[in-house]
Amino acid sequence: MIAEKEKAIGVFDSGVGGLTVFRELMKQMPKERLIYFGDTARVPYGSKSKETVTNYSRQIIRFLRTQDVKAIVVACNTASAMALDDIEEETDIPIIGVVKPGALTAAETTKNGKIGLIGTEATISSGIYEKYLKEMHPHVSVLGKACPLFCPLVEEGLLDDPVTTEIARRYLAGLVDSGIDTLIMGCTHYPMIKDTLQAVVGESVVLVNPAYETARECKTMLSGKDLLNEKEIELGSSAYQFFVSDAAEKFKTIANMFLPLGILGAKTVPIEDYK
Amino acid sequence: MIAEKEKAIGVFDSGVGGLTVFRELMKQMPKERLIYFGDTARVPYGSKSKETVTNYSRQIIRFLRTQDVKAIVVACNTASAMALDDIEEETDIPIIGVVKPGALTAAETTKNGKIGLIGTEATISSGIYEKYLKEMHPHVSVLGKACPLFCPLVEEGLLDDPVTTEIARRYLAGLVDSGIDTLIMGCTHYPMIKDTLQAVVGESVVLVNPAYETARECKTMLSGKDLLNEKEIELGSSAYQFFVSDAAEKFKTIANMFLPLGILGAKTVPIEDYK
Repeated sequence: MIAEKEKAIGVFDSGVGGLTVFRELMKQMPKERLIYFGDTARVPYGSKSKETVTNYSRQIIRFLRTQDVKAIVVACNTASAMALDDIEEETDIPIIGVVKPGALTAAETTKNGKIGLIGTEATISSGIYEKYLKEMHPHVSVLGKACPLFCPLVEEGLLDDPVTTEIARRYLAGLVDSGIDTLIMGCTHYPMIKDTLQAVVGESVVLVNPAYETARECKTMLSGKDLLNEKEIELGSSAYQFFVSDAAEKFKTIANMFLPLGILGAKTVPIEDYK
Repeated sequence: MIAEKEKAIGVFDSGVGGLTVFRELMKQMPKERLIYFGDTARVPYGSKSKETVTNYSRQIIRFLRTQDVKAIVVACNTASAMALDDIEEETDIPIIGVVKPGALTAAETTKNGKIGLIGTEATISSGIYEKYLKEMHPHVSVLGKACPLFCPLVEEGLLDDPVTTEIARRYLAGLVDSGIDTLIMGCTHYPMIKDTLQAVVGESVVLVNPAYETARECKTMLSGKDLLNEKEIELGSSAYQFFVSDAAEKFKTIANMFLPLGILGAKTVPIEDYK
C-alpha cells in the first residue's frame, strides 16, 4: 500500500485554464505527483448556476477519490467561488480553492484599498472575493467586472493581439478610472494575457495571480499535516496524469500552450457516471 | 386525449442560438405549438466530441418525448452534423436537422460551384455539409472555416461592432480570396451578425441561413404526413414553451435579444436524469 504522503494531489478545473495553477503546483512542489481533471465536456462553468457547478464539482471529486488522492485543489475560480463551501463539508481530505489565496494576496498588496476583480460572470456575481477581502480588510473597496470574451480569446490563441487589447480596454476602462492599485486575475485563463492586461491598466497597478498563492497555501497546508512527499519523483514515472471528460486530443493541443511540458495524452472519463 | 396534429413540435439547441430557427418556425407555421429546449448547462457543443453531443441529444429527445411532441427539429448545427444520423434511427417520430436543408439551399444557390461554410469546429470537421452538397451537386467545392469567436461575440451583444468586423475579416479572408459565391451560415448564432458578414464578404456573395429552409422542410414534411395543425392558436394559451438545463433567468435575457417576443420565463429541467 502506498504511504499517504506519497499519494498524488488532485487538481480540477472546468477545462484547460486550471493548468496555470497546475504549473505553479509543479514549480513550488517538484516532488509531488499531480492528477489533473479538466471538465472539457461541460466547459465553461462561468455562465452556469451555483447548483449546476456544485453538482459538477461533486462528480469530479468522486472521480478524483477513485484515483486515491491525498488532497484536492479546485483550480477553477468559478467552482471555488460557487461550490467550495458546500463540497468542503462533504469531503474528508483537505481541499483548497483559488479564491481565498487570491483574496489574501490582494489584501496584502493594495495600498489605497481599491481592488479590481475580473473573472467570469458567475465568479463576479457570487460576491465571494469581496466577502473574503472584507473579512481580511474591512475598509477595502472591490470593483468587479465580468469579462466573458477573455476565455474564448485565450483559447483561440489571441494572447498578444490588437483585438484582445481593444476588448481589454473596454472591460477595464471603469476599473482604471476608479483608481484601483491592485487587479485580481480571477479566472485561470487570464494569466495567459497578463502582458496585455498590464499594458491596459498601466504599470502602477499590481496584477494578482491567485495560482501562485494557491500553490503556496497548498504547500503550507500539506506541510502542516505532514503530507508533503519527501521522495524524489523518479524519471519516467507517471508523475503527472491528465484526465478530461471529452475531446482528449483537443485538450492535448491547447494544454501544451498552457504548460510547456509536452503533454503526451489525456484519458477520457465518463464524468456523469460519478454520481 | 389531444389529437396527433394538435401536439407541439419540439425544438432543441445547445443554448440560445436555436431561437433563430424557432423564429422561422413561428413565422412559417403560425398555427403550430412549439416547445424549445436549450441545453444551457452544457453549452457550447461546438468544441465537443461526436459521442458526447450524441449522448446529450439523446437525453434531450427523451425529455421532449415526455412533452408529447409530434416531431422534433434539431435546431443546432453541431448536433445535426454529429448526432442526427444515429438519433434518427432510434426515434419513432419525425426528426429533422438544419444541415440538410442548409446544404440544399446552398446547392440551389451557387452559380460558380464554390461554396463557403462557417460554423463551429465540430460542424466543420464533421464534413457533413460537404457530404450532402456533393450528393446533390458532385462538382461543387466546399471551403470550410471554423469561427469559434463568433458565438461568444454574439452572446456579448457585439452584433455591430468593429471588433466583430475585424474577427470576421480574419476568419473569412481565405473564403473571399478563393472566390466563393455562396456562404452557409452553419451555426444558428451567425444570422445575428448577418450584416457584418455580408459587409466582409461583399454583396456578390449570397448568405444562406439554414433556419429558413429548415422551417420550410418541416412544414412540407408535416403536411405530407397530415400532421399540420389546422386550429388557430388561442390567445393566452401557452403556444410557446421554453425549457433549459440551467440558468433560466439568464436565458430569458439573451433569448429576448434573439426573439422579439417577450419571453416571460423558462423552466429548468435536470437533463442528465433523462438517460
